[in-house]
Amino acid sequence: MKLFGYWRSSATYRVRIALALKGLDYDYEPVNLLKGEQKGSAYLTRNPTGLVPTLETDDGDFITQSLAIIGYLEDSHPAPTILPDEPVARAHALSIAMSIACEAQPFMNLRMQKYLKTERNFNDIAMTDWLNRWSGGAMAAVEKIVTQTGGDYCIGDTPSLADCCLVPQMFGALRFGIDVSAMLRLNAIYERCQKHPAFEKAHPDHQPDAVQQ
Amino acid sequence: MKLFGYWRSSATYRVRIALALKGLDYDYEPVNLLKGEQKGSAYLTRNPTGLVPTLETDDGDFITQSLAIIGYLEDSHPAPTILPDEPVARAHALSIAMSIACEAQPFMNLRMQKYLKTERNFNDIAMTDWLNRWSGGAMAAVEKIVTQTGGDYCIGDTPSLADCCLVPQMFGALRFGIDVSAMLRLNAIYERCQKHPAFEKAHPDHQPDAVQQ
Repeated sequence: MKLFGYWRSSATYRVRIALALKGLDYDYEPVNLLKGEQKGSAYLTRNPTGLVPTLETDDGDFITQSLAIIGYLEDSHPAPTILPDEPVARAHALSIAMSIACEAQPFMNLRMQKYLKTERNFNDIAMTDWLNRWSGGAMAAVEKIVTQTGGDYCIGDTPSLADCCLVPQMFGALRFGIDVSAMLRLNAIYERCQKHPAFEKAHPDHQPDAVQQ
Repeated sequence: MKLFGYWRSSATYRVRIALALKGLDYDYEPVNLLKGEQKGSAYLTRNPTGLVPTLETDDGDFITQSLAIIGYLEDSHPAPTILPDEPVARAHALSIAMSIACEAQPFMNLRMQKYLKTERNFNDIAMTDWLNRWSGGAMAAVEKIVTQTGGDYCIGDTPSLADCCLVPQMFGALRFGIDVSAMLRLNAIYERCQKHPAFEKAHPDHQPDAVQQ
């Protein structure tokens, strides 16, 4: 398998965590978002949406969207699973993943921030307000869910799909100055994940296209 | 089972289509978004995120997020499935669903439009530009995917999870004046779905809380 992605892309990071938790080997081909490579013809033939990540399967099929890629990995390599066995717990894991992917991340990503700054004249105060309201608000909702479902991780005491989404979201939130200080459960899980070898392997700073700041 | 939702909520509409395609009976309890009932204490005990829909299972568990609810329905009532059997086709169905849920719908929903109008002073021109750029742009990407994967429906000739997401997105796009005229495949699938009994049953206008315009 080959993963096309970008070191600091939240969605790529989710897939890297899932691959690492499942112990799967893969090739990695960086797509430099700052250079616009995701809009180049080579990449668009693999992924017509021009977004990262994309997974090329061993059979040469291309799969887009991080959660669809993770679903494919579960189908094609079911053991070890990163989904809880029990249907309601599994639904809760997916619900947390969706809350992050649909309510938090879309308002925080690079292209949205660039648009707000350049085309809507958002200054730093407006940008911080925007990020805290939308992405931060969604994360506060996830904190409430995890208070009901979590243990050491988002669902009980085992890393799952939910943690694959939470960790990149926390990473981005801290990077962009979103105030997550009141989200005690999410912070505790994030700190725990930092020490887990699969999450460590998947960390943006440990990717071949990482740039020293 | 009981579904808590709102007739014109895109996410609730997705779940209604899935329930109808699977032939499942359920009770329906309206949550009036215009009256803010989703932020009331009664609803928040069921869904701390304050969003619709929520599914109450036969065992009294509450599941949030439309795609997590549909995943639960697949797990708990696998036949008939609304996911393709083949893993790559299944991934493509999930990818289309995620493109709509993460890239198109978040920028079109009521609370975002209300915020842009009241707190960012978007006039009609700015609002139309916003909707076409973000939601419309994501739908144009879905059109490209469906050109590769679709037949009578988004994935081949059988309705799937992808169509559960496409139809509410098209309904909302047309309602809000997003220009989808160039998306020929999506329009054709949307028209076909309008004549399918499951999609007809799930239509907003056919819900008990529908309001005549």
